[in-house]
Amino acid sequence: MARPKLTPVRSGDRLTLNDRDARPGDDVPSKAKLEKLLEDAAERVADLQKVLYADARYALLVVFQGRDASGKDSAIKNTFRKTNPQGMEVTSFGVPSKLEFKHDFLWRVHHRIPARGFIGVFNRSHYEDVLVPRVNGSITKKEWTARYRQMNDFERMLSENGVVIRKFFLHMSRAEQRVQLQERLEDPEKNWKFRKEDLDDRAKWPAFTAAYRDALRACSTPWAPWYVVPADDKRLRNYLIASTVADTLGRLDLRYPLAPLEIRRMKIR
Amino acid sequence: MARPKLTPVRSGDRLTLNDRDARPGDDVPSKAKLEKLLEDAAERVADLQKVLYADARYALLVVFQGRDASGKDSAIKNTFRKTNPQGMEVTSFGVPSKLEFKHDFLWRVHHRIPARGFIGVFNRSHYEDVLVPRVNGSITKKEWTARYRQMNDFERMLSENGVVIRKFFLHMSRAEQRVQLQERLEDPEKNWKFRKEDLDDRAKWPAFTAAYRDALRACSTPWAPWYVVPADDKRLRNYLIASTVADTLGRLDLRYPLAPLEIRRMKIR
Repeated sequence: MARPKLTPVRSGDRLTLNDRDARPGDDVPSKAKLEKLLEDAAERVADLQKVLYADARYALLVVFQGRDASGKDSAIKNTFRKTNPQGMEVTSFGVPSKLEFKHDFLWRVHHRIPARGFIGVFNRSHYEDVLVPRVNGSITKKEWTARYRQMNDFERMLSENGVVIRKFFLHMSRAEQRVQLQERLEDPEKNWKFRKEDLDDRAKWPAFTAAYRDALRACSTPWAPWYVVPADDKRLRNYLIASTVADTLGRLDLRYPLAPLEIRRMKIR
Repeated sequence: MARPKLTPVRSGDRLTLNDRDARPGDDVPSKAKLEKLLEDAAERVADLQKVLYADARYALLVVFQGRDASGKDSAIKNTFRKTNPQGMEVTSFGVPSKLEFKHDFLWRVHHRIPARGFIGVFNRSHYEDVLVPRVNGSITKKEWTARYRQMNDFERMLSENGVVIRKFFLHMSRAEQRVQLQERLEDPEKNWKFRKEDLDDRAKWPAFTAAYRDALRACSTPWAPWYVVPADDKRLRNYLIASTVADTLGRLDLRYPLAPLEIRRMKIR
């Protein structure tokens, strides 16, 4: 059986993002097989991070977007579960602070772009700024369309300066979100962070779907592609992301710099 | 057999920091047993990090100091090998930049103190500023003594504002450093970062020992204790650190906030 694999969104894609697209499909490896594949992919990511650091020509930025309970936290934890925390930095972007609101929407993001040699992970990102304010009606179509261009230009600049970018939209079905949110409510280790307002976005499901569809199509570029990840099945979701990250690093032709001969021949006393 | 355990440095300690102090001693568990103990300790750290985040009253700052090849990187990786990277941040402090040099020596450090709910790890720290310039003769005894006080005051302020601090000096023997450095030179995945100047500090071994001894005794406080970790045996070293970190978190009486009844009884539709 061929291994499942993600392909980048193209601007011409229909991208219905309906409930069916969120399901794993028929041709999926068994649970045990997926777990093994994920373990291997996470191991590859960890090994390649060491060379990424030594090589120091590239940074890797991995962006995670998705509705509440679509599994962003779990996907991050699992993709990088073997990776040295010293080589990476995860940033969770919440509601902007007063100061952040006074700046352009890319300001707080730019500050958290990984340095060459490092992996940066965004749990939510500048893409929130074409989703939430659009759905809430606080920006116009002209404004969010301008932001698409601004984001593409920003990401191109980053990519031209060594930042390799991959963006994952964790696409879960409305039915699965119900199951996940209900589980969260009943889990004393998780329900403490639940707010009634968390359900507002669920009530606006179709509006968010439209906002995601437009953003994904407008901002999936050769230098910063978007991937739609079917997210109803956790193992498949995590494997698809981890293997895409590993393949991305694997194609960079990373190498350990060669130490000078006088170093290699040195004897310590 | 009692499990090995670290105790904080006290100002009256002799602290010879000789080669013998770096060795594991007789009463050490077997390799297999140590590996198992480390695994358990790393698991405890990971579990407690989740509650630390939910509880959000405390941050944890873990400082690592030690000579070249004493195992700071390995100790960090292993202590936090089960911890969600999203809940922690590792900062490696190198030679200060031009801008950093124009500031007080605590400026760049303060910026990287973890927020409440998070774990911050320092790979080297403000303690470099009472070691390197002292050994190189660029500050006077009066100056480094003032820095001890400034660091103690700074750390007390942090601790009074919710930052729990633990500091580990990885104490390796001069003989073991020779072995480790030689191995590094012969490893193509590691020798690329070796500089001939890296040996300068080794040549000044006794001067660094004196500088460490004074700093550890002057700055091991009730609110930010120093631990001397025998570092010649990697497994013992990693276990001692991981278990001290786990015990520290375990004593904080962390708890998940209780969700309001209306949240716990909610049904998602």
